[in-house]
Amino acid sequence: MPIDLFENPEGTREEILAAAYRALCEHGYADLTIGTIGQEFEKSPSLVYHYYEGKDELLVDFLEFMLDGFETSVPDREFDDAHEQLQALIDHVFPDDLEDERRGFSGAMLQLRAQAVQDPAYANHFTRSDRFFQARLVSIVERGIEEGVFREVDPEAVAAFLLTAINGAMYRRVTADVDESIPAIREEIRTYVARRLLAEGGELTEATPDVQADR
Amino acid sequence: MPIDLFENPEGTREEILAAAYRALCEHGYADLTIGTIGQEFEKSPSLVYHYYEGKDELLVDFLEFMLDGFETSVPDREFDDAHEQLQALIDHVFPDDLEDERRGFSGAMLQLRAQAVQDPAYANHFTRSDRFFQARLVSIVERGIEEGVFREVDPEAVAAFLLTAINGAMYRRVTADVDESIPAIREEIRTYVARRLLAEGGELTEATPDVQADR
Repeated sequence: MPIDLFENPEGTREEILAAAYRALCEHGYADLTIGTIGQEFEKSPSLVYHYYEGKDELLVDFLEFMLDGFETSVPDREFDDAHEQLQALIDHVFPDDLEDERRGFSGAMLQLRAQAVQDPAYANHFTRSDRFFQARLVSIVERGIEEGVFREVDPEAVAAFLLTAINGAMYRRVTADVDESIPAIREEIRTYVARRLLAEGGELTEATPDVQADR
Repeated sequence: MPIDLFENPEGTREEILAAAYRALCEHGYADLTIGTIGQEFEKSPSLVYHYYEGKDELLVDFLEFMLDGFETSVPDREFDDAHEQLQALIDHVFPDDLEDERRGFSGAMLQLRAQAVQDPAYANHFTRSDRFFQARLVSIVERGIEEGVFREVDPEAVAAFLLTAINGAMYRRVTADVDESIPAIREEIRTYVARRLLAEGGELTEATPDVQADR
C-alpha cells in the first residue's frame, strides 16, 4: 500500500512526496497547491519550490515514485496456487467498505488520472502503470496455467479484462453512490474467474458460489 | 448519441447547452470557462451569465439534460432477442477506434465525473446516471430470461458488472494508451456474457468465439 511507501521517507524528495500523499488524501487534487503540500512538509515549505516548478510536475513524480515502489516490491504473501492468489487480489480491490483514508486516496488518484485526458505527462504515466499492473495479472494467470489450475487461456486478454473491471469498480465507487453494488460485482468477477479460468475438475471453493448450480 | 440531442436546440437553455457540448469536445473540462462556452454560443455570450452562475452549475445542468434525453428515448432498433441486443450494445461501447469527436467527448465526460470526487452536485448526477444505465441493462437481461435465451441469473448483479466493465474500458482508454487491448477486452466481455447468460442450447453465434473450444 502507498502508506507503507511513505512511512519512512529518505531524503528531501521522499519527504516532499510523503507530504503530497498526506495533502492529497486530505484535500484531493482540485484544492491542492504547492502551498498546501508545503504545509504538510516538515521542513521549510519554500524548499518544495526548489525541487518542483509546479504542482503537476510534483504529482507526476509522486505517481512515478509510487509505481517504482510497486515494481520493486515482491508480493509478500505466499499462496498455495494462482487461483488462491487471484481470489486474494479480488478481495483486496473490492472491499465492502472503503475506509476514509483509502477512499480519499482513491478519489485523488482518479482525479490525477483524469488529468491524463489533456496532459501527456500524466497519460504516459498511466500507460506505464496500466502495463505494469496488467503484467502482474498476466503472471498470475500464467502461473495458474503452469500449475494446471487454470485452462489454456490467453493470459493477456484475461488480464486486460480483469484490470478493466477492477479500474471500473474503483472509478464508479469514488464518483457515485454504488457501494451497495460492490458485493454483487465482486461475486460476478469471481464467477467470471471460475468459468473462464478454472480447469475442469479444478477445485470450486466457497469463494466461487453458484458455479455448479446453474452451469 | 449526445450529438443528436444538440442538433436542433429549442430555446436559449438548449442553445447554451449545445454550445457547452461543442466547447467540451474542443477544450475539455480543464480549459473550459463560461467565456469559452459563450464563444460557441450563437447569441450574446453575456446571456450565458444570466442563466448560470458558474461553469459547474452549467455543466451539471448539461449532464442532467443529456440524461433526461436518454431517459425519454426509446431504443430505436429492434432486435430479434435480448442476446442480439446485448451484443449490439457491446459493439457500440467497445469500438476498435474512437473517432476524434467521440474521444474528445468521452474524455470530457471522464473529467466531469472526476469532479464528483469532491462536488456533491456531480456525485448526485452520476449516481442517478449509473442507476439509469444499470436499469437499462437489467431490462435487457430480464427480457432474455423471459425469452428463454438467458439463464435464470440475478439481473441486477449481471447488470452492475457489465456497467462496471463498460465504464472501466472507457475510463482506461481516454487516460492511457490501451486501444490495442480493446478488441481482447471486448471478446472477454462476450465470453462472460456467453458463459454467464446463455441458456443451455442457446445459440452460439460467431460473435461468441471460442466458447465451445475450451469449455
